Order: sequence, then structure tokens, then C-alpha cells
Amino acid sequence: MMLQVMPQKLKLTNDRLLKALSCQNTGRPPVWLMRQAGRYMPEYRALRAKYSFLDMCHQPELVVEITQLPLTVFGMDAAILFSDILVIPEALGLGLRFEDQVGPILERPLKTPADIAALPVLDVSDSLSYVAQSIRLLKERLEVPLLGFAGAPFTIASYMIEGGSSPALKKTKQWMLRDPVSFHRLLEKIADDTIAYLNLQIDAGVDAVQLFDSWAHVLGHVQFREFSLAYLKRIVEGLKPRNVPVILFCRGASVFAKQLAEAAPAGISLDWNTDITQMRLTIPQSIALQGNIDPDLLYAPKEVIQKELDRLITGMKGDKGFILNLGHGIHPDTPVDAVKYLIDAVKRYGD
Amino acid sequence: MMLQVMPQKLKLTNDRLLKALSCQNTGRPPVWLMRQAGRYMPEYRALRAKYSFLDMCHQPELVVEITQLPLTVFGMDAAILFSDILVIPEALGLGLRFEDQVGPILERPLKTPADIAALPVLDVSDSLSYVAQSIRLLKERLEVPLLGFAGAPFTIASYMIEGGSSPALKKTKQWMLRDPVSFHRLLEKIADDTIAYLNLQIDAGVDAVQLFDSWAHVLGHVQFREFSLAYLKRIVEGLKPRNVPVILFCRGASVFAKQLAEAAPAGISLDWNTDITQMRLTIPQSIALQGNIDPDLLYAPKEVIQKELDRLITGMKGDKGFILNLGHGIHPDTPVDAVKYLIDAVKRYGD
Repeated sequence: MMLQVMPQKLKLTNDRLLKALSCQNTGRPPVWLMRQAGRYMPEYRALRAKYSFLDMCHQPELVVEITQLPLTVFGMDAAILFSDILVIPEALGLGLRFEDQVGPILERPLKTPADIAALPVLDVSDSLSYVAQSIRLLKERLEVPLLGFAGAPFTIASYMIEGGSSPALKKTKQWMLRDPVSFHRLLEKIADDTIAYLNLQIDAGVDAVQLFDSWAHVLGHVQFREFSLAYLKRIVEGLKPRNVPVILFCRGASVFAKQLAEAAPAGISLDWNTDITQMRLTIPQSIALQGNIDPDLLYAPKEVIQKELDRLITGMKGDKGFILNLGHGIHPDTPVDAVKYLIDAVKRYGD
Repeated sequence: MMLQVMPQKLKLTNDRLLKALSCQNTGRPPVWLMRQAGRYMPEYRALRAKYSFLDMCHQPELVVEITQLPLTVFGMDAAILFSDILVIPEALGLGLRFEDQVGPILERPLKTPADIAALPVLDVSDSLSYVAQSIRLLKERLEVPLLGFAGAPFTIASYMIEGGSSPALKKTKQWMLRDPVSFHRLLEKIADDTIAYLNLQIDAGVDAVQLFDSWAHVLGHVQFREFSLAYLKRIVEGLKPRNVPVILFCRGASVFAKQLAEAAPAGISLDWNTDITQMRLTIPQSIALQGNIDPDLLYAPKEVIQKELDRLITGMKGDKGFILNLGHGIHPDTPVDAVKYLIDAVKRYGD
């Protein structure tokens, strides 16, 4: 019997995350942090002083260096590709830039259904080839699993309509409520481009992928099913032949987790509003649960961090599908010492 | 047997809300809208052009006029006192003003535990007597129940520390995590002042009260119990001898409702992330449920509003403790026509 082995995967010496994602981890939980390569690290800020954020996303050598930074300094159990969810709208020609203190700006947001119809067919192997190249370089170096990622269709659509971050998503929700037909057309287009983009990442070697539905919490439960979950399902289904684990992150997962489970992802990422041990009782044992530390906890004294970790790890003891993470991205002003303490403390829970 | 009858309550010709709050309403659900007297009404904007927001809160004749505006125009089943949750910090000397486009500012926010210790003893019958006077005047005129309200201790504490609206509540959470002892002292102080303030409102004649924990959703479930729920309970307990229904509103109630039910309030107000009919199965039948329409729904065409109402009212049919409301305050740019349509549509569901 011949097994097709991808040579770059032979280097994995730590597959704790992948074991947890198949709910077969019998040791301590794997730990990684959303946005773990970020502004809280002085090494990151030093690079950011020399390059724009977009340069850092676009240049494979920089992506490789930045992705590895937190692994070198703190030793997380997984790497996540350094990139941004908005590279898809950028590749679709909406014009992406990042402004300090403001965040992302899409210079040509969608204003009418005609703008949706005019979106180009995306050739990911052309416009997003730098991502594939970054992944290939990373896979030559990494000894831990590499996570790829993309934004979820509802979240990407909201950026494409709002033209940037806009907590109330007023334009998006008005469009959705007043013209659901064209809104669905947009979501379908993004979902299909996202499947192509994640396939590109998988071809290049990522070991798992995470979908970020960062704005889904503005939706009611009926809308969530129609405008968010349906497209998460479409992507999970679309990737199924690849047999690569998919983690679903959405803000509001404390409420929406049961619906997310219907998409049958490998894992669900939880925010900190909910008790993960209680959530475990309602989510199938075949789905890993990731979370659910409040990022603000890293402002607390070490004994408070330790107490919270004890509660969480004791509560999830014996769970083979638990991945320790924050419930949201790490804050830029997080003390480096707290991150080091957290990662070391998780490792003290043994093998 | 002598019954002590409060004469002003004799004028109530519509007690639908009070029936629902005691879970004994057999007719259509009562309807009112959070922030129903607000900027979306041209009559309100005309007054706001002449007076500052604080003048509008402080002057009983204006409070009476503004509180009644939506009842006259739309005919809701309840009035809610026109005021602001920040009149407590104002009465405690923190200096309150409202800036257009910014929101509330507390000019002397709390910075150290010594600032907490230095807070004055609050004599509500002195500094908040204008509220009692407004309520007495209103009770002479209203034919529907009048809701009083106050901010919940965690939310008020967060404004007192941040000095204004601040979605991440960074200073508040850092204080809470680094010095929980003094933070608890602040919450206790606010809770006791709030009990005194709500007793003042009850003495003056309000028929029910609502507590607003508008920032509770930033808390983890363990923190919610310790820093929010404990003080909601303290207030509900403190008011129990008055036998006036208390509604608990908190952002994140879709997650926290089961914990809120432990405080045994008369009602819980839900946001729109959750299915209220599912929530009903986990909340005791003795607790009314209020909600849970997305305020954005009022941007939708009438047929979409009608469809959502049909779903909600059919789903809660036969429930004697259902109060129809938005899941959050009405937006300032809500079309008046949509509000009129909503209220009329609820009334078409019969008696």
C-alpha cells in the first residue's frame, strides 16, 4: 500500500493541536493565541517601524519571520500564518490600506447591487500566490502545525460594504434587510472565492484552517442561520474532500455554538462569556472546543492568571478535544511577561 | 380590612405590562420600546434644539412632556421615565455633561481607591428630588404603567472609572482584575445608592423598575457572577419589601439569562441573538421575558417587520409573561413610520 506523504509534514515534531482537532489528545491541551504575532511583541513593533502592515502581509520573507516570532519567544504549540482577512477584498480590487488608530480602509466599498455583479472572477493562484509562497517557506521551517485562515463571508461582506471597521454595521444590515437577494449573491461569491483561497493554502501545506466571523454577533438568531451559518457550512462542505480540520471562530459563539456545530467543523472557538465545561455538554464530542480566556486576563497579576488557568484546565481535564486559546485576539498593550507566564504555565500541566 | 390604595394608581386604564410582569397576561403582549422617547422623534428633536439633554432630565415639566411624547404619537402600553442612568454619578459629584457625537462625559472619573472612599453619602431625597417630582407629575397624567429605572452597579462603576463610554472598558477591567477589593467596595456603594434611588422612585409612584447592565457583556461568566449578578441580586433583594416588579436588562442576556434568573427578578430583557421561545424553556415560568427584536429591523420594509413579528408572537403565543420590546434602545435614525407600523401591528394581534 502506497501512502502519499507530503514531505514538508515530516518535520512536525509537535502535533498536539492536530490531535486535539481530531479529539484524540490525551496530554495537556495545546495552546496558541489569536493574533500571537502582533504589536504586543517588541520584535514585531521593530519590524512594523520599517514596513507597512500590508508589506508585512505581502512579502513572503517577512511573513515567515513574523509568523515564527512568537514561537521562538514563547513556544506556542501552533503557528498561524501572518496575514489579514481582508486580502480577499484587496484581491477583488477594493483597494486596501491600514491607517494607524483607525484600522483597515477599503477605498472602493460596494454601494449597489451592480457593484457586486461587477466584482471580478478571482484567480487566487495569481493574486494570492504570495500567500502560497509564504506557506511553502514556513512549512520548510516549522516544527509545529501551521494554521491558515480566512474571513467568513458575512464578516468579509460587511467590510466590503462599510469600507472599514464599523461596530454597528448599519449599512450592511440595512442592505441585508432591504435587499437580501443581492446580499446573498455577495455572500455566495465570497464563500466560493474563500473556498478557492483556502484550497490554495491547503495545497501549499497548512495543517488546519480557521474561519473568522468577527462581526456575526450583530445578527439575530434567524439572520445568523441565513446569512452567516449557511456560508460557513458551504465552506466546510467545500473543503471536506481535503480532509484538513476547519475551526470556526465567531464573535457571539457563546450563543451561536450549537448552530455552529451543525456545520460539523473540526473545532469551535469560544469567547469568554460562557462556561466551556457547560458548553461541552451540548456540543458533540467529535468537535474540538477552543478558548476561552478573556484577553483582558493578561492584564492581571500572575496568581490571577494561574487561578483562571487552573479552573479552565481542571474543568476540561480528560477532554481530548480542548485547545487552550484566548476568546479573541491578544491586545496590543498586553504585557509580554503575562504571555510568557501563560504559555509556560500551560506547559507545566505536563505532557 | 383597610387597603392602602395609592390614589394615583387608580387612573391606570391599561395594566397589560403589569399583568405580563406577574405572568398573568392572557391577551396580546404589551409593547414598549427602550429609549422610546428619543431622537428618532421629530417632537423630541424640536425640544432638544431648545434645551440641553441634562436640562431635559432635570426639569420635571420637560420630563413629563418628553416621557409622554411616544405614548401620544404611537400608543405604547407603558411609559418609561425620561432620564439617564448617569444621574447617580452626577449626584455623587463626578460632573456629568453630554457632548454631541461623543456621548456622556464624567469630568472627575475615579482614579484610585481613595477616590472611592471619598465619594459622598448620597441623600437621594435631596439631590434626586427632581426625579421624584417628575414621577409624581407623570402619575397624575398617565393611563399606562410608568417604569422607573437605574443603571446596574457594574455599568455605573464602569462609567465612573472610564469617564464616559468606552467599549473595551480597559480601565475598568484592569481595576477589577488588579484590585478586586476596592472594586467590590465601589459596586457595594453604587448598589446601596441605587436601592435608595429606586425606593425614591417607588415612593413617588413608579409601577415597575428596570435595571440596565449595559456593559455586562464584556465580562466572563465567572466575573459576571462576582461583579454583576451579585449586585443585581442585592438590589432585587433590597427592593423585595416594596413588591414592585424589577426587570433586569443586560447586554449579553442571551448568554447570561440563566444566571440572571437566579436573582429572581419579575422579568428578564433579552437581546436578539437568541430564540426567545428556546430561552423560555430554560427560564422559570414565573419570570417574564422581554424582547427580543433587533432594533435594526425597523430599517426593514414593512413586510419584513410583519414577518418577524408573526414569528415572534406566534412563537410566544399563550405565554402569559411575554413583553414585546426591542433588544436594545431604538436607534436615533429609526424611521418614525416603522415605529408606528410596529406598534399598530402588535395591537392588531387582538386583546
